[in-house]
Amino acid sequence: MLRLLSAGESHGQALLAILEGMPAGLRVDKRIIDQELKRRQSGYGRGPRMKIEKDKVDILSGVIKGKTIGSPIALKIDNRDFSIDRLPSILAPRPGHADLAGALKYDFKDIRFVLERASARETAVRVAAGALCKFFLKEFKIAVSSKVLMVGGKTSESEIRHKIDEAKRKQDTLGGSFEVIAKGVPVGLGSYAQYDKRLDAKLAAAVMAIPGIKAVEFGLGAESANKMGSEVHDEIFYSKGNGFYRKTNNAGGIEGGVSNGEAIVLRAYMKPISSLAQPLDSVNIITKKPTKAAIQRADICAVLAAGVIAEGVVAFVLSDAFLEKFGSDSLIQIRRSYEGYVKSL
Amino acid sequence: MLRLLSAGESHGQALLAILEGMPAGLRVDKRIIDQELKRRQSGYGRGPRMKIEKDKVDILSGVIKGKTIGSPIALKIDNRDFSIDRLPSILAPRPGHADLAGALKYDFKDIRFVLERASARETAVRVAAGALCKFFLKEFKIAVSSKVLMVGGKTSESEIRHKIDEAKRKQDTLGGSFEVIAKGVPVGLGSYAQYDKRLDAKLAAAVMAIPGIKAVEFGLGAESANKMGSEVHDEIFYSKGNGFYRKTNNAGGIEGGVSNGEAIVLRAYMKPISSLAQPLDSVNIITKKPTKAAIQRADICAVLAAGVIAEGVVAFVLSDAFLEKFGSDSLIQIRRSYEGYVKSL
Amino acid sequence: MLRLLSAGESHGQALLAILEGMPAGLRVDKRIIDQELKRRQSGYGRGPRMKIEKDKVDILSGVIKGKTIGSPIALKIDNRDFSIDRLPSILAPRPGHADLAGALKYDFKDIRFVLERASARETAVRVAAGALCKFFLKEFKIAVSSKVLMVGGKTSESEIRHKIDEAKRKQDTLGGSFEVIAKGVPVGLGSYAQYDKRLDAKLAAAVMAIPGIKAVEFGLGAESANKMGSEVHDEIFYSKGNGFYRKTNNAGGIEGGVSNGEAIVLRAYMKPISSLAQPLDSVNIITKKPTKAAIQRADICAVLAAGVIAEGVVAFVLSDAFLEKFGSDSLIQIRRSYEGYVKSL
Amino acid sequence: MLRLLSAGESHGQALLAILEGMPAGLRVDKRIIDQELKRRQSGYGRGPRMKIEKDKVDILSGVIKGKTIGSPIALKIDNRDFSIDRLPSILAPRPGHADLAGALKYDFKDIRFVLERASARETAVRVAAGALCKFFLKEFKIAVSSKVLMVGGKTSESEIRHKIDEAKRKQDTLGGSFEVIAKGVPVGLGSYAQYDKRLDAKLAAAVMAIPGIKAVEFGLGAESANKMGSEVHDEIFYSKGNGFYRKTNNAGGIEGGVSNGEAIVLRAYMKPISSLAQPLDSVNIITKKPTKAAIQRADICAVLAAGVIAEGVVAFVLSDAFLEKFGSDSLIQIRRSYEGYVKSL
Repeated sequence: MLRLLSAGESHGQALLAILEGMPAGLRVDKRIIDQELKRRQSGYGRGPRMKIEKDKVDILSGVIKGKTIGSPIALKIDNRDFSIDRLPSILAPRPGHADLAGALKYDFKDIRFVLERASARETAVRVAAGALCKFFLKEFKIAVSSKVLMVGGKTSESEIRHKIDEAKRKQDTLGGSFEVIAKGVPVGLGSYAQYDKRLDAKLAAAVMAIPGIKAVEFGLGAESANKMGSEVHDEIFYSKGNGFYRKTNNAGGIEGGVSNGEAIVLRAYMKPISSLAQPLDSVNIITKKPTKAAIQRADICAVLAAGVIAEGVVAFVLSDAFLEKFGSDSLIQIRRSYEGYVKSL
Repeated sequence: MLRLLSAGESHGQALLAILEGMPAGLRVDKRIIDQELKRRQSGYGRGPRMKIEKDKVDILSGVIKGKTIGSPIALKIDNRDFSIDRLPSILAPRPGHADLAGALKYDFKDIRFVLERASARETAVRVAAGALCKFFLKEFKIAVSSKVLMVGGKTSESEIRHKIDEAKRKQDTLGGSFEVIAKGVPVGLGSYAQYDKRLDAKLAAAVMAIPGIKAVEFGLGAESANKMGSEVHDEIFYSKGNGFYRKTNNAGGIEGGVSNGEAIVLRAYMKPISSLAQPLDSVNIITKKPTKAAIQRADICAVLAAGVIAEGVVAFVLSDAFLEKFGSDSLIQIRRSYEGYVKSL
Repeated sequence: MLRLLSAGESHGQALLAILEGMPAGLRVDKRIIDQELKRRQSGYGRGPRMKIEKDKVDILSGVIKGKTIGSPIALKIDNRDFSIDRLPSILAPRPGHADLAGALKYDFKDIRFVLERASARETAVRVAAGALCKFFLKEFKIAVSSKVLMVGGKTSESEIRHKIDEAKRKQDTLGGSFEVIAKGVPVGLGSYAQYDKRLDAKLAAAVMAIPGIKAVEFGLGAESANKMGSEVHDEIFYSKGNGFYRKTNNAGGIEGGVSNGEAIVLRAYMKPISSLAQPLDSVNIITKKPTKAAIQRADICAVLAAGVIAEGVVAFVLSDAFLEKFGSDSLIQIRRSYEGYVKSL
Repeated sequence: MLRLLSAGESHGQALLAILEGMPAGLRVDKRIIDQELKRRQSGYGRGPRMKIEKDKVDILSGVIKGKTIGSPIALKIDNRDFSIDRLPSILAPRPGHADLAGALKYDFKDIRFVLERASARETAVRVAAGALCKFFLKEFKIAVSSKVLMVGGKTSESEIRHKIDEAKRKQDTLGGSFEVIAKGVPVGLGSYAQYDKRLDAKLAAAVMAIPGIKAVEFGLGAESANKMGSEVHDEIFYSKGNGFYRKTNNAGGIEGGVSNGEAIVLRAYMKPISSLAQPLDSVNIITKKPTKAAIQRADICAVLAAGVIAEGVVAFVLSDAFLEKFGSDSLIQIRRSYEGYVKSL
């Protein structure tokens, strides 16, 4: 139901997205989108680019007088550092990045043409689009949040800061892990009826598509592979007030590819940033001679940002599944459909 | 480029799939597909159903005289245990399964209508379709294999057998983990250009869509979140004979959403089977009274099978990305396009 | 929301389709599907194949005890004339058919591999799938019918019969035109919000995809290009009983890509059958020498059948748009959503 | 392979499009895109808006130093008449437009929210995206052009001018018909293998999705329904120099849903513009009282523009089918694949 295409290069004029399928009648608050953009730019260990860019969204279409009209919503975030035509060629691919594979794939003699698009800067518009999806979900009391769990093996905030300082000193980089939680998701989103309609499959794709993510898990996740069934599956209970409910949530809110009414909980693991100040061994793509990888201005660590981006893409997938189940077009109609369903449960 | 829809219930007449977009001129060997189906049915700890079913594929269309003709390929696997209309209603949802969520989603008063489709039996046709994709990949010397890494926390074969025996005795179930490796994948499949074209995102979705999978990771995976960038990223080298290559493969063959020419390596973690002989607490969906979950004939452990299924879905995703890059229609034309590319690298 | 893939060759074992996305709880009557299949086989001027085949559908999945369960529905129609592996090669492409273009596209040295799939026999499963969609639409009092308007320039039944007799005598073939009418379609299906969501665009594609169709028009159609706006546009009226209504329907029930509550009316024009008993000039695809086109057993005229097929594909498109607007999953939920909307109008 | 989403309202800040999947290495000339935009704005009988807007495209992404980089291309056309938040509400739907159906579909109390997006002004970005596709096709010597055939029943230029003057005097509007021709299309685009892959079906959808189009036909089109097969089908010939060829092109370049190497020829019929200066009968959507339809600044006739738009959408569909057959990513690779194919024919 929902479609999203993004566009834009890291040092191009702007980042853009078109979000299609958002129903009519939804109140949109630009300030909250800008707050989300700011959240994406924050976190200890971010690079100098974050000081240059002060991301603000322009909503170019699809919203009149603060409300959606069911038409595609175009989002634009200008790049302050718009310099793409003046930037030098790059010939030494960075290990860990799309640099080499991209240059070979597209027949480029300049890695610049890869990294401008492969840059994580693109995720700013995914956050903006995700913020719109959050507005939609909020109408149905669904809230998506995230938190950093670990950075470079450390879990407490002070240890994390020290670790980041250490990495900076060593001109090295760090990754980490974060959790995304979606509360208030009704039972019945996604489906087991076809492999590609499973909600966990869609969420996994969306989160794995965030730059740097190397692992995704739901609920108890990888750990569930070590246990017996009786220790893992969430027993089912019922009470008048709550309807069906669970006392545990090892499933992370999804059973058989379908949301089960509990909070959806997923965790993702991010590798360290691929742009190192002390560059790794590489090869000049033209001369084929050994060289050090190109040095690009970059973060030391961006796990907090990745969590914010993940919130956005999770909100997108949930909104899409919600619209598929309850119908599209207008908030009034969708609410009627949703309330009828909830009442029937 | 490739499209795949599956159909069929666990105790219905048959399982079916239509695979669309496979190029013309590909040799198809039914016996090898049947071998793959047999692999899916094997492994220590499988249940009684595996003794009943002797899966064999019928290729109903798209292949003439042993070769594909570019038309949709219909695959059918008959169920020996075809009994769907005689089977009793089920009212006690099994924790871990789609049972409860499915019944509420679709307004069912009988969980039978859920579990017949949500059953992992459906994966047989995904394996058959995957076998066709393997034929295609083999033409380009791409091979997809899998191996079990761990079951219930145990890694050696003898320990695994003991663990499964123990689970059986306790009327409990087990999960585990497995690895899928795709060798020979050319550099340049997938793309960073749009979030949903990333090869790792597509692979993650495909593998997460296998029943029971709760975590997916590439290369060093979750572990990479604990390390520094200089320890993780695979440095780039070049030699006349090999072209660009790496000495490590922590990336698991994918950087920036694009295959980088190294083997693609992913691992998946499966939760224990959700059907327990010693059932968990549940609630009757009609009376809302507490009860024990329904008992369904099931495996103790199916990690080996899950690996075989994962090979199939990985082969599907890789074939699709390959066709997107090199064109479709005919093996002759695709080979020409592929060889020109490889030569240019 | 709805997905449909078909498979099968003209002289293969069977024709198949998988229809995905049909909601749960819909009553399915196999006899009515078979009646639709029979309607597709009838009409004056049909060829000998129609005497061999007595199409009956097998519903292999997705329906239990006569009702859909929200799972993919697999449909199979066996070919009595299953002989594909014994049939001779064909080297002389028939003008008007996919024969030549198909052989070049797929690198075939035998046109048999084209015509087996390009055959209009495939449309039998589209009719079966369409019959299921008609069951769905009927729940909301939407009915899709068709009628032949003209055959070979003749409009009365007796003239049409004479024309077909004449064509048969001359070993020639005929086309014609037909109209499809969908009554009871609610206002608001389809959308102007994105070019590919327009209902008329989707219907045009579906009908143009029927073999032999060369033109499609809505309402007054091509004729509207000759008139002034004041003569064409359907003025708007309102009454307590009817709500908004029109006294004319030149738009054919669609304005701006959206159904407007009036009957949807489209007409299609079919070229004459491409297989002539007195064959046209052609070229041997191997020797490149002039030859007469291959002679294949065929109809003289199949306009009535094309109308029946068009009903099916129109029902599919309308069902899909209906589900998109009102939500999917269960007939109970969809009805609730639909009735709330109708009441609000 | 190609994806296109457009966004923007008639009096919003700008019109936008994101075109995804265009290969790398394609030269882009902004001036030619602007010329295409100018062509869309021209023609006798256009309204005052055409005097206000001087459409120029901004290419915001996907092009560096005049060449595509394989990344999504964002296109923006600013609206000079950006006034959407100041414009008055509209309550009287115009017959022929999406006004009424749109307001009911989306629960609007102001038709402004419909007409801003349903406006044909949106087609400007389709023309811009189409111009990019034309650049791509030109690399393979494929050219797409159009010409007006008829306006209000008149075919000569002087008669057409008189007719438009008459319509203006009467405060009425006109439609007409146009032809689109694509020359140089190789044999083998599109496929009969699945109903929705037929090239004519895709072209019909694309052209029918242009506002005001009520009929689409290929080659001899509707007229072929009046003739016998021997009069219609294009006999096949062969010569050393030309390969396979035809002396007639009644099929309009497509047989069995596949391009056959002849020029693709389609015609479309446009109804008169729906905004009349002398408005038709309508109903106030709030009070339900009879009223005259809202008067909106509009063209008398826009058939020439519709032809230009049709060129663009045809170029999009052909480019997409071309990429599907010959592979994507880089112009160098696609050319290699294409030339190998052409040589083999």
